[in-house]
Amino acid sequence: MPKLHFEDLTVGLSWKAGPVAVTQADIIAFAQSFDPQPFHTDPEAAAAHRLFRGLAASGWHTAALSMRLFAGGDTILAGGIIGNGIDELRWPRPVRPGDALTLTSEVVELRAPDPGKSVGWARIRNTTTNQNGEVVQSLVATLSVPRRAQG
Amino acid sequence: MPKLHFEDLTVGLSWKAGPVAVTQADIIAFAQSFDPQPFHTDPEAAAAHRLFRGLAASGWHTAALSMRLFAGGDTILAGGIIGNGIDELRWPRPVRPGDALTLTSEVVELRAPDPGKSVGWARIRNTTTNQNGEVVQSLVATLSVPRRAQG
Repeated sequence: MPKLHFEDLTVGLSWKAGPVAVTQADIIAFAQSFDPQPFHTDPEAAAAHRLFRGLAASGWHTAALSMRLFAGGDTILAGGIIGNGIDELRWPRPVRPGDALTLTSEVVELRAPDPGKSVGWARIRNTTTNQNGEVVQSLVATLSVPRRAQG
Repeated sequence: MPKLHFEDLTVGLSWKAGPVAVTQADIIAFAQSFDPQPFHTDPEAAAAHRLFRGLAASGWHTAALSMRLFAGGDTILAGGIIGNGIDELRWPRPVRPGDALTLTSEVVELRAPDPGKSVGWARIRNTTTNQNGEVVQSLVATLSVPRRAQG
């Protein structure tokens, strides 16, 4: 499994992970634990909702599934995924039962390690799409990325 | 349970929810499903980690628990918590086994419904603190908030 160090990153570099499938049972179970609103937990109530028109995953479930793809894909960042924040987290459309999600990660900005330091920073845009190529989530993560160990 | 409509909101209004307790088993179970990195799943590996020095919850677990407090507190928004995005999501320190989390929500900006529309927008800063009053998460949510039904 390729592990990307700071030297491997260039602005515009991108990679993919997934797909991961999402079932109705998954959506309901997550929502019952963390976001127990009827449009996330009750298919009938969700079907009648003026906006959702059917069961929709909690946005935080979409975020958690996207993290699973980011942390568990074939290409990952070296040193673990350690950041101090997320910007511009958006859910332009809901995840539905039966969806299959794919994550695309793209480097959008880099800051090299300070002199004498082993860790730089990368801003990475993560875009989650469903099986129809529709975007269900986007965010920009600011992450710590180590250099390769020096000989 | 008070349900806040748009007319009830003023910039600076705030309310609290919680606490919710977090166990080591909770932290490991969430991470195994969504963020399987050793500093979230393995207490021994986490204890040896240069940064974490002990098991730390996934930031997405902290976010999900904060959502549970926001959606399930004594005071909640009318009409469900429906937003199109989150900005400035930060995790200044990790959640640890045994922590008890409290959420403070504060209205920071309001946009009244357009003429003829029943729904306005609020920007709400949600700050999650542990039992020592230390901030473990902050974010700003942009949310749809309905007016009271007109007679």
